[in-house]
Amino acid sequence: MNSPRRIPVMEVFGPTVQGEGMVIGRKTMFVRTAGCDYQCAWCDSAFTWDGTGKDEIRLLAASEVMEELERTGGSSFDHVTISGGNPALLPQLGELIARLHERGIKTALETQGSRWQPWFADIDDLTLSPKPPSSGMATDWALLDDIVAKLIEQGSAFCLKVVVFDEADLAYAKTVHKRYADVPFYLQAGNGNLTETEPRLMLPYLVERYEWLIGLAMADSELRGVHVLPQLHTWVWGNKKGV
Amino acid sequence: MNSPRRIPVMEVFGPTVQGEGMVIGRKTMFVRTAGCDYQCAWCDSAFTWDGTGKDEIRLLAASEVMEELERTGGSSFDHVTISGGNPALLPQLGELIARLHERGIKTALETQGSRWQPWFADIDDLTLSPKPPSSGMATDWALLDDIVAKLIEQGSAFCLKVVVFDEADLAYAKTVHKRYADVPFYLQAGNGNLTETEPRLMLPYLVERYEWLIGLAMADSELRGVHVLPQLHTWVWGNKKGV
Repeated sequence: MNSPRRIPVMEVFGPTVQGEGMVIGRKTMFVRTAGCDYQCAWCDSAFTWDGTGKDEIRLLAASEVMEELERTGGSSFDHVTISGGNPALLPQLGELIARLHERGIKTALETQGSRWQPWFADIDDLTLSPKPPSSGMATDWALLDDIVAKLIEQGSAFCLKVVVFDEADLAYAKTVHKRYADVPFYLQAGNGNLTETEPRLMLPYLVERYEWLIGLAMADSELRGVHVLPQLHTWVWGNKKGV
Repeated sequence: MNSPRRIPVMEVFGPTVQGEGMVIGRKTMFVRTAGCDYQCAWCDSAFTWDGTGKDEIRLLAASEVMEELERTGGSSFDHVTISGGNPALLPQLGELIARLHERGIKTALETQGSRWQPWFADIDDLTLSPKPPSSGMATDWALLDDIVAKLIEQGSAFCLKVVVFDEADLAYAKTVHKRYADVPFYLQAGNGNLTETEPRLMLPYLVERYEWLIGLAMADSELRGVHVLPQLHTWVWGNKKGV
């Protein structure tokens, strides 16, 4: 079971809607991989790396992930989002992505931009989401420069996304936007309420955070070609997993 | 003042976020034109065509619209959304679109697909939104076929969007999606509550309507390459105008 070609899978679920970023609203299946090189203070999927979800990790071959996607999603999907954790830690995902494309299924992936994988070039909707100061993580700019340059060279359809909790995060986001001015850019309101289990009780907070971020971004002439979005799935389902 | 080159303008506002469709979240200015060839039962901008807003209509030259955009939005925008009413009734919008592009400003437009304009080819983000049965309007399929064919031939970046209030609307949406299978396709949950003035009181209703539409679309194997979205601005600002 410990073949290096196997993928550490935490969850397979869907179809549901993508709740954030460049393909917000897209009908998609999710494959969530385990393991991360970051430990963001506000990570909404900390169970993928902090040990609390270790009993849920299964080491699956690409063919087994395909079977599970079909068993779960039937014939009702044509798009799969690979999420984590940081899926960019896993060179073996290339085989899964190739199998999906063979069946005409599109792929999306989000990663913080701390590792490169050759299969990035094959992803249909790739999001680089470098982490702002509130995460407690530090950005390796030289490495991010290199990844962005490679994606541009390959003609990849990709975007940059920064989660914003406070004004220091917004300043960081502006640095990212100016550094990679030609890359489609998304600001996302951070969710600082990861323990509430009742969606309706979170909603006023989430709306307030989104409106706060809109207000700052709209007034800022250095933020022009931007998208400002919430995590739409949290507005509907709160912190519930598997939707 | 009645030169045919003047544009009947109802509102100029922004910058704000685009609340729906293919560029949801995009920072943009809005120019709302007056007049429509449809009278949808649930139109959220009926003041553009039902006479109630006629005192607000101003006939402006393209240069005057440009001045008003700059006065209102300063240097804080690079995207303008033209909305209505049905802006496709106005051949004279071509001049405004050309002036915007001269200054490096991108343009978006939404129309029901009941009229063609040569300047459709110049729009950066074009949405065709044919109206479902609940609107009380009938679709001229031959005309819509012709518009879609022209846009494909010109290589336009466009999408189709259908607002859904009930299951008959969803069946109509599936007809549209099958007829134009290669065109990016958006389902939008309809807002049947146009009189509530307090956003917080609308929110549970809007979330319920969105979740209802997600449920139907996710279960339907004939709806695969779809996006399902709410009108995000109504979640934040309710039925308030000018945001």
